[in-house]
Amino acid sequence: MTDTPLSLLRAELKKRGLDGFIVPRADEHQGEYVPASAARLAFLTGFTGSAGAAIALHDKAAVFVDGRYTIQVANEVDPKLFAYLHLIEQPPHRWLAETLPAGAKFGYDPWLHTPDQVAQLKDACAQAGAELVAVKTNPLDAVWAGRPPQPLTPVVPHPVSFAGQSAEQKRALIARELKKSDAAFLSAPDSIGWLLNIRGNDVDFTPLPLSFAIIHKDASVDLFVDSRKVPADTKAHLGTDVRLHEPAALEAALKGLKGKTVRLDPATAPSWALDRLVEGDAHIDRAPDPCLLPRACKNEVELTGARNAHLRDGVALSKFLAWLSAEAPKGTVTELSATDKLEECRRGGNLYQGPSFATIAGAGPNGAIVHYRSSPATNRALQTGQIFLIDSGGQYLDGTTDVTRTVAVGEAGAEEKQRFTLVLKGHIALARARFPAGTSGSQLDSLARKPLWDHGLDYDHGTGHGVGSYLSVHEGPQRIAKNNNSQPLLPGMMLSDEPGYYKTGAYGIRIENLIVVKDADGSSERPARDFEVLTLAPIDLNLVDRDLLTDDEAEWLNDYHARVREMLAPLVDPATAKWLCEATRAI
Amino acid sequence: MTDTPLSLLRAELKKRGLDGFIVPRADEHQGEYVPASAARLAFLTGFTGSAGAAIALHDKAAVFVDGRYTIQVANEVDPKLFAYLHLIEQPPHRWLAETLPAGAKFGYDPWLHTPDQVAQLKDACAQAGAELVAVKTNPLDAVWAGRPPQPLTPVVPHPVSFAGQSAEQKRALIARELKKSDAAFLSAPDSIGWLLNIRGNDVDFTPLPLSFAIIHKDASVDLFVDSRKVPADTKAHLGTDVRLHEPAALEAALKGLKGKTVRLDPATAPSWALDRLVEGDAHIDRAPDPCLLPRACKNEVELTGARNAHLRDGVALSKFLAWLSAEAPKGTVTELSATDKLEECRRGGNLYQGPSFATIAGAGPNGAIVHYRSSPATNRALQTGQIFLIDSGGQYLDGTTDVTRTVAVGEAGAEEKQRFTLVLKGHIALARARFPAGTSGSQLDSLARKPLWDHGLDYDHGTGHGVGSYLSVHEGPQRIAKNNNSQPLLPGMMLSDEPGYYKTGAYGIRIENLIVVKDADGSSERPARDFEVLTLAPIDLNLVDRDLLTDDEAEWLNDYHARVREMLAPLVDPATAKWLCEATRAI
Repeated sequence: MTDTPLSLLRAELKKRGLDGFIVPRADEHQGEYVPASAARLAFLTGFTGSAGAAIALHDKAAVFVDGRYTIQVANEVDPKLFAYLHLIEQPPHRWLAETLPAGAKFGYDPWLHTPDQVAQLKDACAQAGAELVAVKTNPLDAVWAGRPPQPLTPVVPHPVSFAGQSAEQKRALIARELKKSDAAFLSAPDSIGWLLNIRGNDVDFTPLPLSFAIIHKDASVDLFVDSRKVPADTKAHLGTDVRLHEPAALEAALKGLKGKTVRLDPATAPSWALDRLVEGDAHIDRAPDPCLLPRACKNEVELTGARNAHLRDGVALSKFLAWLSAEAPKGTVTELSATDKLEECRRGGNLYQGPSFATIAGAGPNGAIVHYRSSPATNRALQTGQIFLIDSGGQYLDGTTDVTRTVAVGEAGAEEKQRFTLVLKGHIALARARFPAGTSGSQLDSLARKPLWDHGLDYDHGTGHGVGSYLSVHEGPQRIAKNNNSQPLLPGMMLSDEPGYYKTGAYGIRIENLIVVKDADGSSERPARDFEVLTLAPIDLNLVDRDLLTDDEAEWLNDYHARVREMLAPLVDPATAKWLCEATRAI
Repeated sequence: MTDTPLSLLRAELKKRGLDGFIVPRADEHQGEYVPASAARLAFLTGFTGSAGAAIALHDKAAVFVDGRYTIQVANEVDPKLFAYLHLIEQPPHRWLAETLPAGAKFGYDPWLHTPDQVAQLKDACAQAGAELVAVKTNPLDAVWAGRPPQPLTPVVPHPVSFAGQSAEQKRALIARELKKSDAAFLSAPDSIGWLLNIRGNDVDFTPLPLSFAIIHKDASVDLFVDSRKVPADTKAHLGTDVRLHEPAALEAALKGLKGKTVRLDPATAPSWALDRLVEGDAHIDRAPDPCLLPRACKNEVELTGARNAHLRDGVALSKFLAWLSAEAPKGTVTELSATDKLEECRRGGNLYQGPSFATIAGAGPNGAIVHYRSSPATNRALQTGQIFLIDSGGQYLDGTTDVTRTVAVGEAGAEEKQRFTLVLKGHIALARARFPAGTSGSQLDSLARKPLWDHGLDYDHGTGHGVGSYLSVHEGPQRIAKNNNSQPLLPGMMLSDEPGYYKTGAYGIRIENLIVVKDADGSSERPARDFEVLTLAPIDLNLVDRDLLTDDEAEWLNDYHARVREMLAPLVDPATAKWLCEATRAI
C-alpha cells in the first residue's frame, strides 16, 4: 500500500505526540477562495468544494461538507479513508466532543481558525476530556511534497478615479471609527485592498492582495506583505504613512502593542493573531472589522463605475443572448461552448479583467443543481423544449457584476412558464420594494418568496448577497436571506436580487439582477429607502405568462425592458440591436 | 422633609453596608403582571408601567422606562428624586458600569432577576471595579410599611374538557422532553398551570397560579405553593404524583438535587434558583422551559374551545358595535362608557371570566397612543368625523380572545380611509399567507407592513404575539415582528394579526384578529402552512376604500364578512342581526 496524505499526516502527528488534527478549507484570511498553496483540504482528502473541513484521528477520519456537496464529496473522497459527515447537522466540534477519547491531545493550526471557531473547538475538547493544542507549524504542510508556492502576484494601485476616495481619506475615516481602541488588526484582504486602494491577483476571480495590516489611531498603517509583491509605483502610491513589513514581522508587531487596546474581529481574524496580542498584554476590543461598513456603502464614484460596468456587461450579455437565441435551437450549443462564448463577448469590454466567479451554466436538469459547474463529463447540449440557466459575472476595474438569466430553447412548457413567472414576480417585488430606514435584508426576503410560497414552492438559497466594487462578488455585512441578518440596508449597499426555483432532475430557474440601496424618491412620513437596478439585460419573455402578472408587475417589466433597450441598443451591432428590440418589447 | 421610600431604602442599604440596589418591575415569575405585594417599583418610584427598573445609589437614583412610558413617567415619578433614563438606549447595566464608584458594593435581589440578567449586572459591576452582592432578604421590603399581603387566591382544576389532555399525559410528555436531564425547574406560572391543568387568580387579567415546580424524569412533580391556596378537590385533581410543598421548602428541594442534571431556563428562572442548584452541586442544563412549545401548540380540544370562545366573543362584540353605531353619532359615548358597555356585552357570555387585559379605547388623538389606557382625566367623547380604536379581550374557560376594531363615527375623512385600507391590506396579506414549514414569524412580518411601506408609512409595534388558552394573552415563543424570532410557526400556535397606523395628535388605526397556524389545504411541493382566522367581528366598511383593494383582497374581506354574518346572525337579537347584515355586506 502506498502512502496517502492521510497516512503521512498520521505519521507526522505521531512524531509530534498528537492524537488528531483538524484541516479546514479556510486559509489565514477566511475568504471564499484560497490559493493553491493553501488548498490543504483538497490535498488531504481530494475534496475541492468551497467549504468544509476534515479531521484525522489515528483510528478514524471524517470529512465534513454541506448539502451542496453531498454528490461531489462521494466522487472526490475515498470512503475507505474518510467518513462523510454533514457540516451543518454534525459539525466538526460536535463530532469531536462525541468521538475524542479522554486525555487525547488534539491539534489545530491557529492561523486557519478564528477565535470564535477555536472557542467551539476548546469547548468540544473539554467535553471529551481532551486537550486542544495550537501547533507551531502545520503538520500537514510538513508532509506536503510538491506544495505549490505561495502566490506572489504584484500588488497594484487601484486609482482614485475608480475608488472615489483616496486611501488617505479612508485611513483617516477608519482611524476615527476606532474610538476607544488604539489600533485595529486587519486580516481580510478585501478590507485591506479597500482601505489602501490596492488590488492583487493572489486567488481566483477576486483581485485580492493577500496580506495583513494594523491601522493605528494616527491613521498610519503597518502592512505585512512579501516585498517581492510590491513594485516601486505601488510603494509610491502607498506613501510614507503605510509602513511595509515582511509577513514574518507580524508576530513582533502584534506583541509590540503591549498595553494598547486593539480591535480584532473574532469572526474573521486568525486566532493566531489574538494569541500574540494576548501574549503581548494588549487589551482586546472584540468588534467587527472597521472597514466592513464603509466598504459596503459605495460612494458616488463607485456607483457611477458600477453603472458603467453594468452597461458594458449588458452589451456583452445582449450579444451573447442574441447569439444564443439564434444558435441554441440548432442543437449545437453546449453548456461549455455557451460559457466560452459569453466570456468571449465580455472579453472585448473596456476595463474587463476576467470573470468574477466560475460561470454556472446548466442545461435542462443540470440547471436544478444550484452550485453546478459544468465539466466535459457533465456537459449537456441545449435542447429544444428545455430551459437553460446561466449565472455569470465580470470583474471590471470600475465594478463587479453578477447576473443570471434563464432562457427557453424553442417553446417552453406551461409548467416552466408558470414557475418562471412566479420567480419573476418575486424578483420584481424585491426590486420595487420601498421600506423604512433601519430595515434589514432578512425583513425583505419573504417579499421575493411570497409568489412561490402561495403555490407551495420555495428555493433553498438566499435571495441576495452583498457585492463588492472590483472586489469580492460575495461580501457582507448586508444580506437578504431567511436567516437573521440585523444589518440595516444603507444607501450605497450593492446586493443581488436572485430568487429561483429548482425541480430536481428537470430544470432550474433563477433571475438575478444587481440592485443598490438608495434614499427613496417621493414624499414619506418616515425616511424611506428603495433600490436602483444596475443590471441591464433582457428577461426572456418566452417564459413569461402575462396573465400571472399584475398590471403593476407588467409595467415594471416593460419599463425595465425599455431602459435596457434604450441604454444598450445604441452600443451593439445591428443584428443584436434588432434582437434586443424584439426581446424587450412591451407585453 | 418627610421620609420617602427612597430615603428609607437608602437608610436600610447603609445599615447593610450596601452602596446601591436595583429594583426591577419584575417579580419572581418574570410575568407581565405582578401582584400588589410585588409592585416594588411602583412603591419606590411611583411608576406604574408594565416594564422598567430603578436604581438607588446614595447620591443619585434613576428610573429606567421604555419609549411607551416617557409621558407617564413624568406624571408619576418625582424628577428631584429620580433621573429618567431610557430602558433600551441606556439600560441599567450600562448606566451602572459608567456610574458605580470603584470598590462599591452593589446589591440585587436574586429572586427578581434571571441568570442572564445577573450576568449582565456582574459584567457591569466588574467594569466599574465594583462588587455585585446578592441580598438574602430584600431591603426595600424591609422598609415597606403596609406592603400588601401575597395573593392567596384558590388554585382550581382546569377541566380536561377544556385542556384536551390530562395533566398525567402532559407530565409524561415533558418528562420525555427532558432527555439528558434528570429534572427541570419551572418558575413560569403559565407553564405550571398548563402542565398540571390548574388555574389561579393571583394577578390581574391572567388566571395564573403563582407557584414553582420541579418536574422529574419519572414524570412526578414537586409543586411549591402556599397550602392555603389549595382546596381539597384540587389536591384530588393533582393526584399522588404531584407532591405539594410550602414555598419555603424550595431551597432544600433544589439543594437536594445534588449530582443530578437539572434543566433551567436562564431567560426566565430566578437567579436564586440557579444559585441554590449550584450550591447543591447539581449540573445545570441551560435550556428553554420545556413546557413552552407544547403549551404554544394548541391541541384539537383547545382549538375547538378557542373557536367557541370566539363565537361568544363575536356575539358580544357585534352587540357592542351595533350599539356603538347607533349611539356614537349622538355624541354621548365616551371612551370609558364604551369600555363599560363592551364589558357588559361580554359579561353575559357563557364561560366568561373577565377581560384578558385592560381595554384600550382611544377616541380621536387618544387612538394614536399605542398603549393608551383611558382614565377620567383623559376620557374623550366620541365625535362625529373622528375615528375610535378599541382593543379588548376576554378570558373564557375555553379560550382567550384579543380583538381590535377601529370604527368611523359618522363620515370618515379621505386620509383616514386610505390609511385604514392600507392597514387592512396588510392584515389580509398576513391572514392569507401560505408559507413553507420552518418559516418563523419574523419572516412574515413584512407582508403585513408592505402596503404601508409602499406609501412611506409604518407602525412601531410588533405585528403578532402568541396567545394562550385560558392563560396569558401574550405568550411565546412564537411572535411576528421585525426583531428576529427564529421559532418556526407550528400547527396549533395561536397569534394575533394586528398591523396599525398612528398619526400623533390625530388618530390611531389597528385591525386585530387572532389566527391559528395550520397545515395548508391543497397540494404543495413542500409541506406548507397557513392560518385559520378565529376572531369573528365586522371590519368597518365605512373606512374601506374599495378602489385600493385588489379583487383578491376584496374577496377575502367579503368571504370573511359572510362567515361572520352566517356564524353570528343566528345568535344575536334581531336589531343586532339587522345591523350585522348591513355591516358585513359584500363590497
